[in-house]
Amino acid sequence: MKKFEEKTISTNNIFKGKIISLQVDEVELPDGKTAKREMVKHPGAVAVIAMTENGKIIMVEQYRKALERSLLEIPAGKLEPGEQPKLTAARELEEETGYTAGNLEHLISFYTSPGFADELIHLYIAKELKKVENPRAGDEDEFVELHKLTIEEAVKCVEDRRIYDAKTAYAVLYLQLQLAMGKI
Amino acid sequence: MKKFEEKTISTNNIFKGKIISLQVDEVELPDGKTAKREMVKHPGAVAVIAMTENGKIIMVEQYRKALERSLLEIPAGKLEPGEQPKLTAARELEEETGYTAGNLEHLISFYTSPGFADELIHLYIAKELKKVENPRAGDEDEFVELHKLTIEEAVKCVEDRRIYDAKTAYAVLYLQLQLAMGKI
Repeated sequence: MKKFEEKTISTNNIFKGKIISLQVDEVELPDGKTAKREMVKHPGAVAVIAMTENGKIIMVEQYRKALERSLLEIPAGKLEPGEQPKLTAARELEEETGYTAGNLEHLISFYTSPGFADELIHLYIAKELKKVENPRAGDEDEFVELHKLTIEEAVKCVEDRRIYDAKTAYAVLYLQLQLAMGKI
Repeated sequence: MKKFEEKTISTNNIFKGKIISLQVDEVELPDGKTAKREMVKHPGAVAVIAMTENGKIIMVEQYRKALERSLLEIPAGKLEPGEQPKLTAARELEEETGYTAGNLEHLISFYTSPGFADELIHLYIAKELKKVENPRAGDEDEFVELHKLTIEEAVKCVEDRRIYDAKTAYAVLYLQLQLAMGKI
């Protein structure tokens, strides 16, 4: 969909980091006027609902420097260059939780902050989990603690505002909807 | 929660824009090693589920330069300095849809991209809508088209992947859950 398209007049590349880059575009608006758009470019990411045999969801608690607090989230991570999202999902699941999945399926994808960033998250569901004896090590600057919640507990965490992360809250409600409709 | 806290060693301010700013912090990890954290600072935002008398949700279609496409979203906008979120919600509702709300309540708040940004969105529900004769004008660089969807249609849009925006998809599922539990 290209309705109200904003054509690029010029691009000013401000920053290129390890994970994100930042640019400011000057654009032509539908009425012919111009405006500036500040935009973060992100490689995209995956998030994984990992369901154990007894129907629990594995969550990771980790510190988020941008917020100066730790959050309860489903396992997630950014795409490496050229990496297929499904492989990213399998890799992040193993690195963050120590499990591999016999069954890994794409559920849905969504943009997290379309107002200023292009991050697209691909949500997967992982089932038939197996504990790996020597799991691949994650990023060495990543410290996580695992929690296992039933779906009811996870929905309650959303309600109680103990889950503050949008992708996790969305994944929990999406899963609940799919289960209610008998699709999972 | 401060588990696995990462203490700031130094901050490098890279960019300060009209909407976002970008900084790179060097941090001390729990194991004493150091790492870099690329972070976008955002003033925070509101999003509004606006329900008409006959139970429809008002959506706005707008172009998102970061994605080079238009998206179907609930009305939303960033907080102005010092502005209370409820006032932002009322303002954005009027600017983007031309309606004011007799009843405007906070539902929940969530972080959209905790891995690289501190954007916190406050979700409101607006009821008892009244069409304003001369609504406050929105930002002059903002072009939107209104759509009204029933909740069933909105849920179907999430399922069909016609709603690609996380805050909107989440708001629709959250509303459905609240209605199912008789809380709204």
